[in-house]
Amino acid sequence: MTSTKFDVLGVGNAIVDVLTHASDEFIAEQNEKYGMMKGAMTLIDTERAEQLYGDIGQATEMSGGSAANTIAIVAGLGAEAAFIGKVAEDQLGDVFAHDLKATGVHFSTPRLKNNHPTGRCFILVTPDAQRTMNTYLGAAAEFEAEDVQENVVSAAKVSYMEGYLFDKEAAKDGYRRVSEIARANGREVALSLSDPFCVERHREDFQDLVDHHVDIVFANEQEIMALYQTETFEEAQEIVRSKCKLVALTRGPKGSVIISGNQTIKIDAIEPSELKDTTGAGDAYAGGFLYGYTNGYDLKACGDLGSLLATEIISQMGPRTDKDLKNFVEGLKKAS
Amino acid sequence: MTSTKFDVLGVGNAIVDVLTHASDEFIAEQNEKYGMMKGAMTLIDTERAEQLYGDIGQATEMSGGSAANTIAIVAGLGAEAAFIGKVAEDQLGDVFAHDLKATGVHFSTPRLKNNHPTGRCFILVTPDAQRTMNTYLGAAAEFEAEDVQENVVSAAKVSYMEGYLFDKEAAKDGYRRVSEIARANGREVALSLSDPFCVERHREDFQDLVDHHVDIVFANEQEIMALYQTETFEEAQEIVRSKCKLVALTRGPKGSVIISGNQTIKIDAIEPSELKDTTGAGDAYAGGFLYGYTNGYDLKACGDLGSLLATEIISQMGPRTDKDLKNFVEGLKKAS
Repeated sequence: MTSTKFDVLGVGNAIVDVLTHASDEFIAEQNEKYGMMKGAMTLIDTERAEQLYGDIGQATEMSGGSAANTIAIVAGLGAEAAFIGKVAEDQLGDVFAHDLKATGVHFSTPRLKNNHPTGRCFILVTPDAQRTMNTYLGAAAEFEAEDVQENVVSAAKVSYMEGYLFDKEAAKDGYRRVSEIARANGREVALSLSDPFCVERHREDFQDLVDHHVDIVFANEQEIMALYQTETFEEAQEIVRSKCKLVALTRGPKGSVIISGNQTIKIDAIEPSELKDTTGAGDAYAGGFLYGYTNGYDLKACGDLGSLLATEIISQMGPRTDKDLKNFVEGLKKAS
Repeated sequence: MTSTKFDVLGVGNAIVDVLTHASDEFIAEQNEKYGMMKGAMTLIDTERAEQLYGDIGQATEMSGGSAANTIAIVAGLGAEAAFIGKVAEDQLGDVFAHDLKATGVHFSTPRLKNNHPTGRCFILVTPDAQRTMNTYLGAAAEFEAEDVQENVVSAAKVSYMEGYLFDKEAAKDGYRRVSEIARANGREVALSLSDPFCVERHREDFQDLVDHHVDIVFANEQEIMALYQTETFEEAQEIVRSKCKLVALTRGPKGSVIISGNQTIKIDAIEPSELKDTTGAGDAYAGGFLYGYTNGYDLKACGDLGSLLATEIISQMGPRTDKDLKNFVEGLKKAS
């Protein structure tokens, strides 16, 4: 095995978030008229994006994208990280690229030219701090196998991919290409199941991946139950334990469970001093976990770091932070 | 006098803010290399904007611009408001226009095409919550007299303009045109002095305006002392009292002073539960004040509303909020 240049590579939809607060009534009204499931991610087209933007209030823009958020955390903690994903040659593309590079992430996927604009996700945060996402993929949907840089994938200890990639055929090919290169080079592949509805849309694909092509799975309680159509979280845990060597399952305020062979490690959540916005909680958990995993920490410490970062992110608006995260790593236990 | 359609019209630089935290060391280093005065606003060109963007960390984008921030507050409180300023036909221009319209502001200045991009202000927030601004004017600098819509100006009770407009000749002409139309229609003109260095750059112009062309002046302690080159705040108060019929002078945590003829009304500041970022504090004060002034509140209530809004804005990152501000007006005293 050749040496690795990156601890973690993220592959996913390159998105800029448009964040605003909204009432439950607003979500209910939008749901009735156009379909908008509270707490879930709905894909929207250009026309609907314009309409929705016209309906929401004053907003804030912040780089987002599930895997990109995770990678920003990994790099923020001080690891070597890379990202592959597609933005356009436009101002929001500049924003996305700047924010990754500013946290030290290697990002060199060629920009999309003269076609769709950079993707954006309209995130409505309700008074309960829950986020409801509406994604216009734009240029992100044009990510394809050709964008996968072999030298980047082969140089990463872990390639981490979001399940959302499966919403587009070309991106699915890109996903497969990453997986092939990683495995051919003896690297590991991690998958996030992204969203319960995304799991419903791609259950067979995801089951096949978890069975045969993935080393580490990240999911929340609803996603893992949706994957195996179980009635209880416990049943889903036992099924996934037999399928994949390392699994991290998040449960919001109930913490998380790490499953590795016979081991089951329960990780406590850390209550935020003020819960502001759950956007990016799972992404941040995965970021903390993967930093620990690729830097020699034991699994308990990986989970604890995941909890710490998730709490940091839900204590503020949006999925990214410009805080110095390096001190978060202090005092955690390295694997013996 | 014909009836008014707008309570307040704002005229100023149309800007999107790029907000990030930075250390005092970073500011000192940038100051040494390129000139960057802590707490002040520095104008920068395209090249410097790119360089600075490359040097700062993960950022958040939010609509800004001094007068535009004020107008967003006025509209957020429930008044009829309009804005005149120049953005380009680009994504940041869309962001700026969306955020004004989303708060109910009438905004129909034609966009600049095929020329400079929408202006942006790189705002560095230091650990003391002070903001240091670096403005690339872009399209905002192309604002000129032709952009001034007579039907909008003549329909506004008060036309509020930022001193920053004086940094460009064409914008200065635009300023004069607004002032002429407003006065010809028996409306009032308000001016914010913007920044002590802006006052230094345009002292004679500003003195002439305050003496002859302005009904309401907004300034902070440093700006009014810079305008009259006085050694004490008290001296500056007495000079401006003789020049202008209504003056609101802000002093940060020391509150504000409203001067109207023989009256001197002291307004207390309201301590924020957590001071996060002083960006937009003066803009928000002016917004609260002007809402009150144009809606029949007495001067004390105008100042109190200014304090309330300033405190709201400094309790968060950035100069705008998507909170419902309408309840801020409750319980304040109308003029008898």
